[in-house]
Amino acid sequence: MIPRYSRKEMTSIWDPETRFRIWFEIEAHAATASAEIGLIPKDAAKKIWEKGSAAAFDVARIDEIEAVTKHDVIAFLTHLAEFVGPEARFVHQGMTSSDVLDTCLNVQLVRAADIIIGDIDRLLAALKTRAYEFKDTVTIGRSHGIHAEPTTFGLKLAFAYAEFQRARGRMVAARKEVATCAISGAVGTFANIDPRIEMYVAQKMGLTPEPVSTQIIPRDRHAMYFATLGVVASSIERLAIEIRHLQRTEVLEAEEYFSPGQKGSSAMPHKRNPVLSENVTGLARLVRGYALPAMENVALWHERDISHSSVERMIGPDATVTLDFALNRLAGIIEKLVVYPENMKKNLDKLGGLHNSQRVLLALTQAGVSREDAYALVQRNAMKTWEQGKDFLVELKNDKDVTAKVPAAKLEAMFDLDYHTAHVDTIFKRVFETG
Amino acid sequence: MIPRYSRKEMTSIWDPETRFRIWFEIEAHAATASAEIGLIPKDAAKKIWEKGSAAAFDVARIDEIEAVTKHDVIAFLTHLAEFVGPEARFVHQGMTSSDVLDTCLNVQLVRAADIIIGDIDRLLAALKTRAYEFKDTVTIGRSHGIHAEPTTFGLKLAFAYAEFQRARGRMVAARKEVATCAISGAVGTFANIDPRIEMYVAQKMGLTPEPVSTQIIPRDRHAMYFATLGVVASSIERLAIEIRHLQRTEVLEAEEYFSPGQKGSSAMPHKRNPVLSENVTGLARLVRGYALPAMENVALWHERDISHSSVERMIGPDATVTLDFALNRLAGIIEKLVVYPENMKKNLDKLGGLHNSQRVLLALTQAGVSREDAYALVQRNAMKTWEQGKDFLVELKNDKDVTAKVPAAKLEAMFDLDYHTAHVDTIFKRVFETG
Amino acid sequence: MIPRYSRKEMTSIWDPETRFRIWFEIEAHAATASAEIGLIPKDAAKKIWEKGSAAAFDVARIDEIEAVTKHDVIAFLTHLAEFVGPEARFVHQGMTSSDVLDTCLNVQLVRAADIIIGDIDRLLAALKTRAYEFKDTVTIGRSHGIHAEPTTFGLKLAFAYAEFQRARGRMVAARKEVATCAISGAVGTFANIDPRIEMYVAQKMGLTPEPVSTQIIPRDRHAMYFATLGVVASSIERLAIEIRHLQRTEVLEAEEYFSPGQKGSSAMPHKRNPVLSENVTGLARLVRGYALPAMENVALWHERDISHSSVERMIGPDATVTLDFALNRLAGIIEKLVVYPENMKKNLDKLGGLHNSQRVLLALTQAGVSREDAYALVQRNAMKTWEQGKDFLVELKNDKDVTAKVPAAKLEAMFDLDYHTAHVDTIFKRVFETG
Amino acid sequence: MIPRYSRKEMTSIWDPETRFRIWFEIEAHAATASAEIGLIPKDAAKKIWEKGSAAAFDVARIDEIEAVTKHDVIAFLTHLAEFVGPEARFVHQGMTSSDVLDTCLNVQLVRAADIIIGDIDRLLAALKTRAYEFKDTVTIGRSHGIHAEPTTFGLKLAFAYAEFQRARGRMVAARKEVATCAISGAVGTFANIDPRIEMYVAQKMGLTPEPVSTQIIPRDRHAMYFATLGVVASSIERLAIEIRHLQRTEVLEAEEYFSPGQKGSSAMPHKRNPVLSENVTGLARLVRGYALPAMENVALWHERDISHSSVERMIGPDATVTLDFALNRLAGIIEKLVVYPENMKKNLDKLGGLHNSQRVLLALTQAGVSREDAYALVQRNAMKTWEQGKDFLVELKNDKDVTAKVPAAKLEAMFDLDYHTAHVDTIFKRVFETG
Repeated sequence: MIPRYSRKEMTSIWDPETRFRIWFEIEAHAATASAEIGLIPKDAAKKIWEKGSAAAFDVARIDEIEAVTKHDVIAFLTHLAEFVGPEARFVHQGMTSSDVLDTCLNVQLVRAADIIIGDIDRLLAALKTRAYEFKDTVTIGRSHGIHAEPTTFGLKLAFAYAEFQRARGRMVAARKEVATCAISGAVGTFANIDPRIEMYVAQKMGLTPEPVSTQIIPRDRHAMYFATLGVVASSIERLAIEIRHLQRTEVLEAEEYFSPGQKGSSAMPHKRNPVLSENVTGLARLVRGYALPAMENVALWHERDISHSSVERMIGPDATVTLDFALNRLAGIIEKLVVYPENMKKNLDKLGGLHNSQRVLLALTQAGVSREDAYALVQRNAMKTWEQGKDFLVELKNDKDVTAKVPAAKLEAMFDLDYHTAHVDTIFKRVFETG
Repeated sequence: MIPRYSRKEMTSIWDPETRFRIWFEIEAHAATASAEIGLIPKDAAKKIWEKGSAAAFDVARIDEIEAVTKHDVIAFLTHLAEFVGPEARFVHQGMTSSDVLDTCLNVQLVRAADIIIGDIDRLLAALKTRAYEFKDTVTIGRSHGIHAEPTTFGLKLAFAYAEFQRARGRMVAARKEVATCAISGAVGTFANIDPRIEMYVAQKMGLTPEPVSTQIIPRDRHAMYFATLGVVASSIERLAIEIRHLQRTEVLEAEEYFSPGQKGSSAMPHKRNPVLSENVTGLARLVRGYALPAMENVALWHERDISHSSVERMIGPDATVTLDFALNRLAGIIEKLVVYPENMKKNLDKLGGLHNSQRVLLALTQAGVSREDAYALVQRNAMKTWEQGKDFLVELKNDKDVTAKVPAAKLEAMFDLDYHTAHVDTIFKRVFETG
Repeated sequence: MIPRYSRKEMTSIWDPETRFRIWFEIEAHAATASAEIGLIPKDAAKKIWEKGSAAAFDVARIDEIEAVTKHDVIAFLTHLAEFVGPEARFVHQGMTSSDVLDTCLNVQLVRAADIIIGDIDRLLAALKTRAYEFKDTVTIGRSHGIHAEPTTFGLKLAFAYAEFQRARGRMVAARKEVATCAISGAVGTFANIDPRIEMYVAQKMGLTPEPVSTQIIPRDRHAMYFATLGVVASSIERLAIEIRHLQRTEVLEAEEYFSPGQKGSSAMPHKRNPVLSENVTGLARLVRGYALPAMENVALWHERDISHSSVERMIGPDATVTLDFALNRLAGIIEKLVVYPENMKKNLDKLGGLHNSQRVLLALTQAGVSREDAYALVQRNAMKTWEQGKDFLVELKNDKDVTAKVPAAKLEAMFDLDYHTAHVDTIFKRVFETG
Repeated sequence: MIPRYSRKEMTSIWDPETRFRIWFEIEAHAATASAEIGLIPKDAAKKIWEKGSAAAFDVARIDEIEAVTKHDVIAFLTHLAEFVGPEARFVHQGMTSSDVLDTCLNVQLVRAADIIIGDIDRLLAALKTRAYEFKDTVTIGRSHGIHAEPTTFGLKLAFAYAEFQRARGRMVAARKEVATCAISGAVGTFANIDPRIEMYVAQKMGLTPEPVSTQIIPRDRHAMYFATLGVVASSIERLAIEIRHLQRTEVLEAEEYFSPGQKGSSAMPHKRNPVLSENVTGLARLVRGYALPAMENVALWHERDISHSSVERMIGPDATVTLDFALNRLAGIIEKLVVYPENMKKNLDKLGGLHNSQRVLLALTQAGVSREDAYALVQRNAMKTWEQGKDFLVELKNDKDVTAKVPAAKLEAMFDLDYHTAHVDTIFKRVFETG
């Protein structure tokens, strides 16, 4: 997480101030619940809320205390006591640090998921708008980087839309994975704390109680969360690479918006590069990379060890901030993408009609030619087109073996673009109206 | 995937014979659907089914053809034509190889997921049985590898049960991710194939149609699938490491079953090692490692490139076979685990009662001592116990500052194991009766 | 490791037969050394060599014994005893299984490294030949996928050559990392075995003794080995992606050899796809993925645990066989690559001379214009070329602000391709004659 | 990279101020070289040095310019021009941004490597001192977490020393990988820049010229660098886990230093946890995770794309800062480690002498018993010891089949610890005097 690739909305979740505020809320809710079931005085709970809510926690002061105690939650509690006074002894009753830390982390991850889901919604909106804008804009579909058959630019965007709809569903599931709360004490037995307190805090913090915890909330939940971020990032990479391909000099079917004053290269003033798409390609690699330490975090020792903590202090912010930034950047790219339908047309015509090869193949088999023979007939004409730049239709019409089965007029009728777009509306309906 | 770590049930999904059989079914269902909407003769479809169903596909022959065509699906279709005869030209009409390959892969992954879900069920059953067996068997809970507070061995297993319940839920979701079918032609436009055919084949193969495909089924689905396997594997590792810890010579609270005739070491005849748990620890690393290439597979070029294929030919079998094997091995470990409650008791007593430190701390704060002072009071007695092997309760009773606030009798009452297990039933109810 | 992506030369290293033969050699050399220092009878050592060398080890029989002992080395020793007779009790004296297993693994990894180094040599030879063939074949250099300035196709290959020279150096270093032998007994103390035996076996097996081992050879060595394979694989991916880009329909500057009879698509007979390059792209992902479990294998418990073993049984063959296959496939691609210099020329001319923008910029600054003003002057003419397809030189000559500083004749002289290739020989010298 | 896990010495390498200073030095050295070969006026080069050296670059101002140009090097050059005046047009002549950026990155990585090598040296010194301190302190060696045979605590540390010596060697190699400089222009052809300039700058910056570059320095170098950091981190993890195991309550053979005022748990005042070792365990996971995006960075498109940049802006600091911090923390742990030889002795005696089982096995085979029979004889007595807590020597002496071959007196002599430590000096010599 570096400022260059960060949005304030997401980084603020990970500020020390936010963390301490969440810690306080967890402690204060626990105090309220403890008071309600008669474990601590009601006045104490009230005072904790009042004094703590009014307090401006001093991060530097907490750091100072931690330098001695080497324990961050104790440092915070000590600092909190400076505001609350003697009633502070009723704070954290029967709780262990992890009750606070893990519940807080999950609150943060849930908030981060909400932002990411919002990011995906922005991207989905952009994709949908542009998809309809180019629903019928014919362009060549490519497999292996080689011209295959025509499709439309709208379909390309519809494909991305469907992918990010899945990404959205995965994020909703990932959010649910981590939306749990544990206030269960030192090894999760509730020996020193009443389970009703956990229930109360969970509800207040928008979480559900963890069915069984062992001081910590189990880390398979977080592994799933970060693995999901990695998969979402991989979808970002896919779309970014599509754009980078389309902007290649020889292709130039679409281009990132190039703003006034922008410079593409310090050496070559002529350059306009897809730098934003390249940027998010790299960011996707990072987010993917964070999934692994998160998975290694699962196998903690016995009821817990703390090796996950250093990992999460880094990848918690790193993964969510980076993904949030990349999603927003990608949404911006799509929103402003400059599209060149005329270049799409020009490229489509480049292979002299070869993209109709399958249709001719099928017509030949329908006319009684075996699949193998039909393939050979079409391929020999296709290769002349490919290698010598001939016109495919002309070659086919000149091939007696072909016209013996499929007459020239019928061949001609096959070189018709509408044939390829006949089902676009069907697919759009599938993607945008159901799903 | 090596025989040593494979179960036949899973490997057979990945046999060439199985693959070709699934290919045939897809082609034959497509032929039926094509015939029903009048695209090919009904007799042809019938003949394809009859001849193909009766055919014993010859893997070596297909390999031979592929050596020339360098294309596996064409090789298969050529071989199929050797059985079907002239009607073979109606096979694969308007389809592209990926229609067959991707739908087949998803059928295989769905079957693999079903086996894995069954494996998890076996493990869950074992965990539940053993959890109830040791529901009230007190053992020390450990954080950081250090004695914390008592828990029960049943709770440890309940924790694992809850974790694998989540694993099960994730596998069900992962199965759904890949349970799609695409029969949409060269770039997914249905230009040469009717969408009704896809609908028909999907239904027959137990899948749903992919809303929008581009020759291929999008690989974010598979990334999510393999990432999920990685997370499930990480949970295996967690439980395996727990067992390895428990079997350590100094701990010895549980032990893998050691069969008659088994030898622990070629050099040291006295050895009994947790080799099965160690084995699955390593297997977990492997399965986790396969998640990454799966994520890198997402960003294919344009409508498709084929770089994902070599990856999937390897990790498809490797990840599913290895995970299936590890889950079964782990279930076996749990089923036969030898448990030593007497050692648990002995270990629990090792720290002279220190595991009651929190309870004393809380009593002091309840008696009006500030949190910080109470902590210092308890810690100074605890450290004598820790460092000099003193009895914690005796030390506390000798500490005037402590007894001034909490009389000796009350202290004594606090050294009571039942206190720690009071909520075990509550937790068991949460884990086994709801969730 | 699957037959499809395997070469026999490499797979045979990992055959059980090879493994048992290496085990035998280690045991027999150790026996000789033991006899020489008087620990066992010389006749026994001689008989072990004779009987063992003549023996045809029966893999199925060993598996059968292992099914009871659950220990592979003991199973082998038991089988060996069936050949050697009573003197077999002098085999494995003071050794532990890992002495055999780890030394054997390193022998295998060293042999694998040797093959891989040979593969790289084949690739280097191909790259060098083709580099000189196209040393002066001008082609456009591209940054961000966008035309930048001219380079030569030979330079592209020289760059790859230098990269694989580094890969070779890394493999030599990786080979050295694992070329160690440990015959140090149960926990590496030589308590039951004389260090001279280790020295002797090491020398005979072409290894050096591990300075300090703890039953096992430390796994940081293997982590480095597999990480190196991952880096080498990443270089394969780079070159493969270069080729895939060059073969794109719109670029078509080079193409994989397409053999007679080959079929590019089951649906579209016109297709010629860079499938080999795509294939090795995927294989690179796999090899990279294996680096991670290898790194996780380092942190074994105390003197050893056996969790690394299952990992290595899989990635040992998988990583080396896959990398070997990919390197050979890549070498074949380069050897037979079809190059289209005329298309390079055509593409180069596509941007109307824009690739000279920097030279004009420099001339303007040399003529006293500030860098910022010069950049703006060039950019405004470049953008007209870019957006409206104008000729860059014509635009510049029409721009009074430009010609005021750099006269038209001088501008014209700048549009000269030789300028860009002036240093090609220098670079070739650096790459092929030194380093 | 977060302050919590950072040391200033390393983070300062990555400060914007440091980066701009290095950029300036590269530009200024290039200007000097350009002047020397007559490409720009000598006065200009002099002025660039003078004004630039005196300048206090304003990071905020550079950010401001970049907000318009969207190009960081151009922003810097514009800012530099504000100090240098008209001669600024001679800065960056014939160079491209990457010449500056990539050379700067390598300078930073080299400096980081130097710090890391220094860190390892600190750790090596600590390991050596403590190794000699405990050279003859006998402790049980453990395989699979189970008692094996005795070793010494010094040997454990010697093993770690050898591992970090290898780590040091790898870092030296990694440093060399990235100690290159490229000043070769837009696509690496030197079209607009003289190769002598590169030579000069390289020498001044302590680097060697990259033999062939394509605007960028090839990223396989960086992949190797970061992969190496991952391997070094894995060795950190190994040693940290050793310490965590030794500090376990039931083992307690060593313990992290626990400072006055430190608190182990907010809930349980009795706790003393190996939190530093756990912390570096997690940090190791992070550093390992960064190796992957670095490997994915290798396959850039054509002469370059910029997708590596976002990755490196993050992992450059993250990986080096984290590894530096972890190494220093680990060195501190070793330096202050509290060791409990008496507990080692106590644990060693725990298995009733079983660790001599191999020696008895060997004596039996020497006395003519077959390996299989000897194993069975020893195992049956060992298992009684293991399962019923009997004394191994007593059992053996009571076993007539044993004493028939090896008399009781001889058996007794075998239960001798010195036997196991006889070769410690030899190993120490290997590790500390050669290596």
